[in-house]
Amino acid sequence: MLTRDDFEDLLKIGVALSSVHDLDRLLDMILFESQRLTNADGASIYLVQGEKLVFKSVRSNTFFKKWGESKTRQIFKSVEMPLTKDSIAGYVALTLKPLNIPDVRKIPPGSEYHYNPATDKKYGYETISLLAIPMLNYEEKIIGVLQLINSMKGGKAIPFTEEHMRITSSLASQAAVAIQNAMLAEELKNAHYETIIRLSAAAEYRDKETANHIKRVSYYSRLIAEKIGLSKEEVEAIFWSAPMHDIGKLGIPDAILLKPGKLTPEERKIMEQHTIIGAKILEGSKAEILVKSSIIALTHHEKYDGSGYPRGLKAENIPIEGRIVAIADVYDALSSKRPYKEAFPEERVLSIMRESRGTHFDPGLLDVFLRNIDDVREIKKNYPDTEGEIWK
Amino acid sequence: MLTRDDFEDLLKIGVALSSVHDLDRLLDMILFESQRLTNADGASIYLVQGEKLVFKSVRSNTFFKKWGESKTRQIFKSVEMPLTKDSIAGYVALTLKPLNIPDVRKIPPGSEYHYNPATDKKYGYETISLLAIPMLNYEEKIIGVLQLINSMKGGKAIPFTEEHMRITSSLASQAAVAIQNAMLAEELKNAHYETIIRLSAAAEYRDKETANHIKRVSYYSRLIAEKIGLSKEEVEAIFWSAPMHDIGKLGIPDAILLKPGKLTPEERKIMEQHTIIGAKILEGSKAEILVKSSIIALTHHEKYDGSGYPRGLKAENIPIEGRIVAIADVYDALSSKRPYKEAFPEERVLSIMRESRGTHFDPGLLDVFLRNIDDVREIKKNYPDTEGEIWK
Repeated sequence: MLTRDDFEDLLKIGVALSSVHDLDRLLDMILFESQRLTNADGASIYLVQGEKLVFKSVRSNTFFKKWGESKTRQIFKSVEMPLTKDSIAGYVALTLKPLNIPDVRKIPPGSEYHYNPATDKKYGYETISLLAIPMLNYEEKIIGVLQLINSMKGGKAIPFTEEHMRITSSLASQAAVAIQNAMLAEELKNAHYETIIRLSAAAEYRDKETANHIKRVSYYSRLIAEKIGLSKEEVEAIFWSAPMHDIGKLGIPDAILLKPGKLTPEERKIMEQHTIIGAKILEGSKAEILVKSSIIALTHHEKYDGSGYPRGLKAENIPIEGRIVAIADVYDALSSKRPYKEAFPEERVLSIMRESRGTHFDPGLLDVFLRNIDDVREIKKNYPDTEGEIWK
Repeated sequence: MLTRDDFEDLLKIGVALSSVHDLDRLLDMILFESQRLTNADGASIYLVQGEKLVFKSVRSNTFFKKWGESKTRQIFKSVEMPLTKDSIAGYVALTLKPLNIPDVRKIPPGSEYHYNPATDKKYGYETISLLAIPMLNYEEKIIGVLQLINSMKGGKAIPFTEEHMRITSSLASQAAVAIQNAMLAEELKNAHYETIIRLSAAAEYRDKETANHIKRVSYYSRLIAEKIGLSKEEVEAIFWSAPMHDIGKLGIPDAILLKPGKLTPEERKIMEQHTIIGAKILEGSKAEILVKSSIIALTHHEKYDGSGYPRGLKAENIPIEGRIVAIADVYDALSSKRPYKEAFPEERVLSIMRESRGTHFDPGLLDVFLRNIDDVREIKKNYPDTEGEIWK
């Protein structure tokens, strides 16, 4: 039977799990707590995704000591297996019943479930006792499996107890609903980001900007924001807001926006209005992303030396978001193909950027950007311009 | 001391609360459970909003019997009070300590807290025992106050016990995190909806559509979807997708989109492409809203008799979302002012709509729309076209 302390513990864990919205952190917390409650050497979580079981997170005292946390996580990352009874986790996910195996080496040959020692052999580990618990959500649907390995006592692996099974079963149902909530929040956020990208790209449909241009500017901006040490919330807000920087181009007539030659001074003035129009489209909201995107729309063409538009702001008078997106936007314009120009080679792009250090660009931010050029290249590689359907 | 059963109960309640994402349903569930655990005649929740305490939800056996649920809720709806020690709930919110008052009539005059009997007098009720519990989130920040009134035994109000206080305090911390999660999800959703509205309205900036046109179409569509009995999820998806129906107009050149006179047959063909362009901008996503909005963009100009575009689909071959938005969109175009026309009087709008029953519009859906014309009027009143900044 569970003791009063166990229950108090479980109640606290439940509240703690519910207040974590980041899936990775949540999974790690579930593993940490289940290890603590059962003295398990190792713990892992598999999530059910369609017809698959996906290995999502691991904690292992033995491997963390041997390899460190990040290497261990790297090694076991994203192993997928079919959702069949051929694995212990699969068996539990399909039968919906917990399985407490005192010694995996002694599973009788005719048993419905089997232990595959391949991973143990590969990494020089010996699994003895194993406890696998189905994680069911509030509608009793399977979300995943919590698997614990080797309950330790005096340096030796002993079988998991009935209490271990009861307490982790209770933990597992709290875990299931917390995981489901975290995934739901992630889905909501992804849908929102995708909407922003699609609609922002659509807004630049007329002048043939691509969705990947928008995405790259969003990722470059996030990179700079991260590297200068802004808070996680600020970094995310910039990531989400940057795509809307040119939304105001919707207000510019075709005759100017799409004019092949050079703009007259009057036309140029109208074109520059896209910053003000964009800010007006987005301003006056309570939503953080819209507030930030309004600022970015207004200030991403300001220059550090005060020669930009629409207000000719100087240096730190330009909001940081505007200074960040200015770098991201210009870099992307120079380094990608546009209807009227080829992509410049990187060397030329960087030399142009460097020449504008302190005139166009905030020198500190530019230095950060250039120091992280490897990450920039990675982003560029991940979001290439595709031919054909230009608005995708 | 709490018993094992109490703990099991609390664990189940915790999981149940975490799986409810609708704030109103969640608050009601918290009240229901806290009434059940303490035998309270009445229960209410106040949430802290800035410098205010806002009365959010109530359950009362006495008043539900006397007036029914909805009238009771109506009467006590959205009472606000300043966050000061002048009310019991305010006192608890500021001191962060639970308060168990055996008899509110016997609070000594020099006490730090006071009971205001005005509401009791007004509604002919007698509060005797009162238990007020602060709801603190995981960071120990005050979210609100759970207030229970008159623990009943044998038809009489008796004081709340120590156990009542313990168990509701535990419930309150589960409640706090669940409430916070529900509010966060609501905030995310609102931000997403607002982004869709702003960007969709921006997309129609060139032909002077307003954000309120977009919103009205969104609300009219939701109304129809609700009244024909679609699931809550489908109704929400239509509500969120409808605003993007004309996003494809971004792909239409100014010369055609903004042409003051009648379009030539060739121009008309190009104009009609906005359905296909819109669908392409939005298609191929995993996000439900984008999938639905792509369908709506493609099919909202189809007509029930097959005379619409772009594909000339007939009757039930037109996706239900397209048939719904067709009614909402045309109704709104007829009943509001546009740059090229005044708003038609309602009588004329409805007679035009009725004439197109079975030709342009799905007859069943149109009947539903017309039967709910009071709700339609309400929406129209709530989102009027404003002069001036046309893109807001």
